[in-house]
Formats: sequence, structure tokens, C-alpha cells
Amino acid sequence: MEPTSGRFELHKVGLYGIRKPLTVRRPDRVVTLTTNFDVAVDLPSSRKGSDLSRNAILLAEIVDETAVRPVPSLESACVAIARQLLERHPYARTASVEASAEYFLRRGIAEERSSFEDYTLLASARSVRADGDGTVTVSKSIGGEAVGMTACPCAMETARESLAGEFPLLRDPSLREMPMITHNQRNRTRLQFDLTEDLEVEADRLIETIETAQSSPTFAILKRGDEARMVIQAHRHPKFVEDVLRDLVQRGATGFPALPDSVFVRAQTVSEESIHKYNVVAEHQARLGDLRASSAR
Amino acid sequence: MEPTSGRFELHKVGLYGIRKPLTVRRPDRVVTLTTNFDVAVDLPSSRKGSDLSRNAILLAEIVDETAVRPVPSLESACVAIARQLLERHPYARTASVEASAEYFLRRGIAEERSSFEDYTLLASARSVRADGDGTVTVSKSIGGEAVGMTACPCAMETARESLAGEFPLLRDPSLREMPMITHNQRNRTRLQFDLTEDLEVEADRLIETIETAQSSPTFAILKRGDEARMVIQAHRHPKFVEDVLRDLVQRGATGFPALPDSVFVRAQTVSEESIHKYNVVAEHQARLGDLRASSAR
Amino acid sequence: MEPTSGRFELHKVGLYGIRKPLTVRRPDRVVTLTTNFDVAVDLPSSRKGSDLSRNAILLAEIVDETAVRPVPSLESACVAIARQLLERHPYARTASVEASAEYFLRRGIAEERSSFEDYTLLASARSVRADGDGTVTVSKSIGGEAVGMTACPCAMETARESLAGEFPLLRDPSLREMPMITHNQRNRTRLQFDLTEDLEVEADRLIETIETAQSSPTFAILKRGDEARMVIQAHRHPKFVEDVLRDLVQRGATGFPALPDSVFVRAQTVSEESIHKYNVVAEHQARLGDLRASSAR
Amino acid sequence: MEPTSGRFELHKVGLYGIRKPLTVRRPDRVVTLTTNFDVAVDLPSSRKGSDLSRNAILLAEIVDETAVRPVPSLESACVAIARQLLERHPYARTASVEASAEYFLRRGIAEERSSFEDYTLLASARSVRADGDGTVTVSKSIGGEAVGMTACPCAMETARESLAGEFPLLRDPSLREMPMITHNQRNRTRLQFDLTEDLEVEADRLIETIETAQSSPTFAILKRGDEARMVIQAHRHPKFVEDVLRDLVQRGATGFPALPDSVFVRAQTVSEESIHKYNVVAEHQARLGDLRASSAR
Repeated sequence: MEPTSGRFELHKVGLYGIRKPLTVRRPDRVVTLTTNFDVAVDLPSSRKGSDLSRNAILLAEIVDETAVRPVPSLESACVAIARQLLERHPYARTASVEASAEYFLRRGIAEERSSFEDYTLLASARSVRADGDGTVTVSKSIGGEAVGMTACPCAMETARESLAGEFPLLRDPSLREMPMITHNQRNRTRLQFDLTEDLEVEADRLIETIETAQSSPTFAILKRGDEARMVIQAHRHPKFVEDVLRDLVQRGATGFPALPDSVFVRAQTVSEESIHKYNVVAEHQARLGDLRASSAR
Repeated sequence: MEPTSGRFELHKVGLYGIRKPLTVRRPDRVVTLTTNFDVAVDLPSSRKGSDLSRNAILLAEIVDETAVRPVPSLESACVAIARQLLERHPYARTASVEASAEYFLRRGIAEERSSFEDYTLLASARSVRADGDGTVTVSKSIGGEAVGMTACPCAMETARESLAGEFPLLRDPSLREMPMITHNQRNRTRLQFDLTEDLEVEADRLIETIETAQSSPTFAILKRGDEARMVIQAHRHPKFVEDVLRDLVQRGATGFPALPDSVFVRAQTVSEESIHKYNVVAEHQARLGDLRASSAR
Repeated sequence: MEPTSGRFELHKVGLYGIRKPLTVRRPDRVVTLTTNFDVAVDLPSSRKGSDLSRNAILLAEIVDETAVRPVPSLESACVAIARQLLERHPYARTASVEASAEYFLRRGIAEERSSFEDYTLLASARSVRADGDGTVTVSKSIGGEAVGMTACPCAMETARESLAGEFPLLRDPSLREMPMITHNQRNRTRLQFDLTEDLEVEADRLIETIETAQSSPTFAILKRGDEARMVIQAHRHPKFVEDVLRDLVQRGATGFPALPDSVFVRAQTVSEESIHKYNVVAEHQARLGDLRASSAR
Repeated sequence: MEPTSGRFELHKVGLYGIRKPLTVRRPDRVVTLTTNFDVAVDLPSSRKGSDLSRNAILLAEIVDETAVRPVPSLESACVAIARQLLERHPYARTASVEASAEYFLRRGIAEERSSFEDYTLLASARSVRADGDGTVTVSKSIGGEAVGMTACPCAMETARESLAGEFPLLRDPSLREMPMITHNQRNRTRLQFDLTEDLEVEADRLIETIETAQSSPTFAILKRGDEARMVIQAHRHPKFVEDVLRDLVQRGATGFPALPDSVFVRAQTVSEESIHKYNVVAEHQARLGDLRASSAR
């Protein structure tokens, strides 16, 4: 017996991996983001299939149009798409849009040695049609990911003890604060806020917030003296992934006072350990209100 | 002002991307799975860091040991690890283990042309320590992914109409049931069950269930006549992703009668469209009880 | 005994995976390519290390500058970098630059349903300093990759024979030319020319050349009738990977008459078979002169 | 005018991405490698297509059979396949096989803390049929890749100088040899030998050779004291990628005296810089004879 298709609703039917150039107007410039979009709507049990060509047409209308008329942000494009998805699929009650894009900011250890550094922007939107009057509510998320550096505080202390046997002068009080050798490594950290449609978070601020939570940001151009400065900076702020994540969560809790307590925060940090072949990870998700309560304790 | 680390609890701290050979005893043979493990525990706000070396030691004890004493399944290894994680991290209340592995089954369009086909096994476990008496409860998931083939029913009908203009004989009633040209493509489909620790699902049955829901499974060895057979088979069962997913959900709802209604089912199907550069996807998640109710309607 | 470093020359020392926005002026518009650069120079045995910070500074100078002053093409940026690498590393005799970027062109099955389709641009440059007078010679490559569709001619014939048993009318002479069911799939094809510095090939023409060699190009927006048209188009031009590659090589040999015989052509095509879990591939590399001689036979 | 297919020969037509479990008998144990195979033969201009199903059948015969009768090594399987490819494709003059597999060795910083560490095995074979008497010659390659750690010697010296301003005691002669802070990171290094069919290289020795050339190997299980030991070990052997590669090439030149001068060596090392978002790479390729001559200077 063949199953009869129509019996089951489906949460998501859509197109994943649509690649598009999205042009965004930033305060100081216009940038084109090579963006990946995943879009979907739900499908009621009463309907056999989702009209997927509408999704491709919609993406072309909204995203291709930005070549001529840039949009304010990746998340505003997601919101517009999520809203239009429910217009174009009248049978659907929910629509979802996920987007990610590589993003460049001019950064450097010194102004005169700044250059484009690469980051990731993350955004999403979800629209829901109310059962009664059909009102559509849209929520969204805004996120960023930055690659930086962590230095391990634990190995620093054990290395100091271990080397003090061979180099007794290390025990001299004047060297107590001297940063010692430890393992350090690439760290990828991500911070995302789930928001109502009317709230705004500037993606560049998310990236700054992440970089401040790592032992050090990293840069493309480092002359010899710069390398030493960055290495010393990282070793003066040695951090476990737990430390990176808690500092990130702390800055998320206190650094965006305009956001209400109901905002949901998602954070993840991944250290690609130099002393292991595997990664060390910490993750947390919480309401901003709960984080603020913890922070105030 | 530096944030004080200890204020925030963290949901997950652990090791991701640990690669290990896991030896599993199957009914008819012993197989070694090259497995990826992600393991983590939570961290209370009262504790500065998670002792991560315990995770690596634990993985070595449980997984490396299977070279000598094989375990029954990937998910049983996950359960053992999740349980032990709470033993080794007494401060933790939850532990999570995610595992995936490439897996081979001898399959073919005919017995004499069978060979090893590759699939993916997915498993996870989560252990929770109760606040009061410290009792530990473990839940798990078992899943599989199979690559097969879908053929599009819509383009088949429009192509038939379109060709009938040029080839009027196509309108002859005797050809009405003849499968017509359409686009067909690789399809990756995944089915997962979230279970209590005591319940069992055979991974090979999940893979069979998936392959039955696709337009056709695919095989490495196909002689000329076999190719025609598979192509005809797929075109006689043309399916949208919506059809694949509903058939899969239907088979999930009815094909595992020993599982209680509380089991949670997750299903996803991805068609790597031959006529587009993007993928078409359908996803659903539901309690088995709800699926059974829909199925019985 | 520790090896003494200085004894060995090394062919390549450099930076791989530098991500940069490169702005290119096209005939009709300005586009920003999210580009991956790998740059390297050789290292003589007499010198301990390569001064790698110069590479990062150079990339910033040349690539970041294009935000203000766009360059004509990806390959012209590679040539400029390869030339400058030898300026900045006076001890080096060779420098190499490899670049790839996602690229978008407005294309469609009909003008009014065109939208941005994604392709890949490939470019490289290599500079060599002569032993005597230090003259620097630069060579370059220009390439493109396009995702399209192939339909299998062999399964089409065997399916026709097989179905004729069940549907005898299929043997009617009027249906002899009717395209029959077969497997079709995503196909990725790449064409690259190795050139001297003074020669030019327009990347858009490479992409057009590739798409003409596939059974059909693919597009994001296809309404119902369009799907049928594309499916019929692909089934009227069924092609093995061998056919795609030979047609591509043929078009390469005859379609760029301005290029001299000494140009080297590299071509690869990959069909992500719908009836198998593995890919089917064909590759060829040859001097344009040899291809032209074969073509003329 | 449609191109006529048959005019052009093609260098390679085959199957890429065939996944298979390959069972190998090692001196002390039997291991199953999850292996990726790419196989191809050339196609003369006189022949329209390559009979690809023969490749899949051949892979099944040779590789699937190892579940019952293990082969000595990955490269011996490649050689057997390359030889048989010419048997099964009588029109072909060359056949190529490329294989890679994840591989596990029990390793650790101390015997009692050893566990399975993951490496990559690389192997290939190429068979050529002579024009005259049809004699088939087979060549092969054997390679390995290991992830370890590098610490930068340059930043160590500049950090020492820089810190000495703040911590004058650092200038004390007794501390001159004390390892100082620097950036360290994951390093992936690969070594391959191109050999005639009769020569053998033990893959485990390649991996050992690589790990000796890095600043330190890395291990899954490290207790607190172990971390310090590994960090000190790496900082006592700070190495640029140039140093890693030259030491590797030196060990390749002198450590395999049984291999003749005609053997070709390929080496690559990639440091995933902790202070940058890009990687630093060094590569070299040379005849063993030339390396030995350089080494003896």
C-alpha cells in the first residue's frame, strides 16, 4: 500500500543554498555580500506541494534588486523575504529565512597597517501568520563570527612551575607578572541576538564585542614588532573557552542596554587547539534578562 | 572593568571533532566505524572551568577499548559516554554526546552485483542528573542517512504535454502510463528517532525505510540493463521532496509499532536538483503519536 | 643530530587562504568578488626564511586598493601581485599566485525570468626572474567553472528498448526521435587557458563555452513550462562526460582564433550521477595547437 | 555545427569519490580504512566512451574482497586496481588510482596515556601499457599526513626583547636559554614518495618522520603536567614552516637509505597561524638524489 501524501503537514519545504550577491548600504560605504540563503515555508496537510518557483522569483526580486537599490542590512533583507514568503504562499503559516555571508572590515594592529580582515555575518527571519485575523509577525536574528586567538591560562602556570626548576631566577618576585609560554591557537567565536522586528543591533558592534572577549584579535599585517605586541597581548589575557564565553555573555548582557530583557542571546566559541587534533568548545543560550540578573549578582 | 568569570553558568563545555575508530558487533559481522564525536557537559556558575582532559581519557577508555571488545551499536557507545561524563564531572548536571560515522552495507540491484554502498549513521545521547537524589536519566537518538534518487512528477507531466504537440502518438491511451522524461537527481534523506534509553531501533532498518521513500535507491554497480531498470523504477515513482518526506514520515509512523507514541521523529530530505544550482529541501519533526494520529485519518 | 636548515632550497613558501574583496570593472558594471588568494615565492638554500609579512602588505596594497580603483579582471590582479612578489622578495626567482572567486551573471531561460546565477572564476599568475639580466617574465591562467546538467545517452537507449516491450507503440517510426527517460544530474565543468601575459580571454566567454558543452545550462527561476523546456532541451542533447569534454575541447580549439597554438588548455567535467553515489569525471590537458590539429582531422 | 566527439583523445575518464571499506593487515593487527578512491583510464580518439561500470565492478572485486582477505597496504590495493584497470579497458594505455584514508595509531605523551590519534594515509598508482609489446609498468606513491604543532622562533625573540624592557631580570645570562612566549598553532604536514612498484616504504615511518620535523606532535590525552611538557617541548624547538619543511626533506633524504636516488619526494607543511586568519605554507618536490646531494654539502 502506497502512503497517501496529503495526510501530513510539513514544517519546512524550501530552497537551500541559493547564492546571491546582496548589496548593503553601510554608514560609510556600499558593500556587496556574497550571501547564502535558505528559505522555506510550512505546508499544511491539505496541500500536496509547495510552489517552489515562487521562492526563486522572490529571491531574485528582493536580492537582485539591491544591486540598484542597496538594503540597510543582511537581516533587513531576511525580514523582507520572510514577510513576502507568506504573501506568495497564502497556504503557509510560517516562513523562515537563514542567511550567512563573508564580510570584510578594515582593521589592523595600527591604523597605518590596517587592511581588510574577514568575518562572517549571520542573520535570519521568521514570519508567522496568526490563525484568526491573519496578522503576520516577524522576528529576526542578527549575528557575527570572528576568528581571533586564545592563550591557555592553565598551561601557562604549569609551564612556569616546570621551568622554575631549571631557571630558578624565574621565582624572583619581579618576574611574577611576566607572561609565560603556553599553547595558543585560532579561536572562532559567534554571537547572535534573537530580536523582534523593530529592534536593531549593529553587526559591527557584535564583531567588536567578540574580539574583545578573545585573548586577542588577529590581523593580516604584522611587522616583527607587531607580532611581539600581539603575542604579549594574548599572553597577558590568557583565556579558556569558558572565559571567552563568559566574558562574551557578560558584554552581551551589559553592552546593549537598549535591548529589552526578552531578547535571546546565543553564543559559541571554538578553540582549534594547537596541542590537540580536536577542538575545545563552549556554548550558551539565554534570555538577556537572565544574563543581566546573573551579571548583577 | 574585566568581567568576573564565575557569574554565568554555561550550557556546554567540551571537545568537538574527536575522531576515533569504533568497533561495533553487528548480527553477522564486526565493523569498525571511523567516528566523529562531540562531547560536552554543562558548567555551573560556581565553577571556573571544566576538566576537559577527563573527556579525552573517557573517550579513549570507552572507544579505544572496542578494538578488543566491540559494542553493540554507535548509540550504545554514546549512552555509555554520556553516563560516564556525569560520573567524571560531578559538578555537571547534563552531558551530551553527538556521533556520526560513515557506514557500509552490501547492497545491489541484483544479489550478484551487490557491493559495499556508503551510508551515514547518526547517534546521540544526553544524560541529566536529577536535582534531588542525583538519579541520572539518559535519552538517546538513532538515525541514518542514505543517498538515493528522486524524479520530479511535475516536469514529467509538463514534458508529456509539451512533447505531445510534436509527437501526437503520445496521446494514445496505451501510452498514458508510460513514464516520461523529467529531471532526476541525487537525494540525501535522513531519519532520526529520539528515544528513551531502553528502546531500540535497528539502524539498518532506518536506512531501508529511507530508501523505500525515495524514487529509487542507487547502487555502485549497474550494467547497461540495470541502468534502464533503475531509471524506469525512479520514473515510475516520481516524487517531490514533499512526497519523499511524507512517505518517510508515514513509514516511520507505521513501521515501528514497538515504539511508544512519545518517541520524537526528525526527518529531512534534500534533492540536489539537476535543473537548478540550489537544493530543494523538506523537513519535519513530530511525536510519533501525532504522526500515527495523522496517518490514521 | 639536528638538520641544518640552510642546505635545501624550497619551491614555495607563502600565505594560503587570504580572503579579500576584489573590485573588478566589467564592461557594463563594477563587481566585488569575494576572493581566495594563495601566494608564494621560492626560497634559495642560502636564505633561512621568507619575509612573509611582505606578502600580506602587498595583498593589502594591491587588492584593498581596488575598492577605490577597480582592476580590469581577477587575472590582472594576479599578474600584478606575481610581479610585485619578485620586487619585494629580491632573493626569489619565482612567484606564484592562485585565485578563485564566486561570480554572478544575470542569466535565465527567458529574458524576463533572468536572475543572478553563480559561477566560479579561476585565475593564476607565475613570475620568473631570469638568471642573467634579471628580466621578469609573467605567465597567467584564466578559467571558469559552471554548474549545468547532463542527461545520459546510454540509459536513454536501453530504457527505450526496455519500455518498448511494455508499450509497443513506442516502436512507431514517428516516435523514433522522441527523447526518452534517462538519468540526468548536476554537472560541474571547468575550462582554463594558460597564457602569456599579453594575451586576453574574457571569462564570461569561458562560462558561455562551458554551458554550451553541457546537455543544458541550469537556471534559478523556472516556471512550470520552463522546466519542461529545460528537461526536453537536456534530453535532446544527452551527453556522457566524454561528450561534454570533447565538445568543450572542440569549442576551445576553434572558438578562440586569436589565441596562438602555444596556449595550453585544461578542461575537467564532473557529473554528480543521480544513479550512483559517486561522481563520473573526464579530464584533458593539451596545447591549443594539438587540439586544433585533432579538430581539423 | 555540432562537434564530432571522436576526434579527441582524453587523458582521464573515470569514477571519483568511490567510498569503500578497505581492510589492511598491519604487522600487529588488522585495520579497516574508510577509503576514498578516484580511478580513471585514458580514452583514445578512436573510441566514443569508456565502459565505466567495469571500474565499479573492479573496485568491488578488489576492495570488498579485503573484508575476507586483507591486503598488505593501501598502496598495494592501488597497484592492484591500476593493473586491473588496464586489463578491463583494453583500449586504454594509462590508468590512475588515487586513494586517501583516515588512519589511527596508538600514540601518547606517555605509554599509559596513549590512545588512538588520527592521521591521513595517501596512496596512488599509475599503470602504463607500452606501445610495442603491451608490457604494463606500474608506479606508485605512498604518503602520510600528520597534524602537530609549530611555535614561531621569530616572535619568540622579539617578545623576549620587548619583555626585557619591563622585566630587566630577563637579561640575566642564566635565563638566556629559557624558552619565551611566541605564537604556536596547529600544523598539518604531508610527505609522499613516488616509487617504482617493487619498492616499499612503511607508512607509519612516514608519519613518525613528519612528527619529528614539527615543533611537537600533539596528543588527545594530556594531564596538567603533560600540557606543560608539550608546550615546553614545542617552545624549545620553535620552527618556521621553512624549518619544518627543510628538516622533513633532510630526514627524507637520509632516513630511507634503501630507496634509490630516482625516487621523487613531495613535501608540504601548513601552519594554521594563531595570529592570522590565513595559513602559512611551504612546499617542495625533488628527486631523492638531488636532496641527498644537497644534504651532503
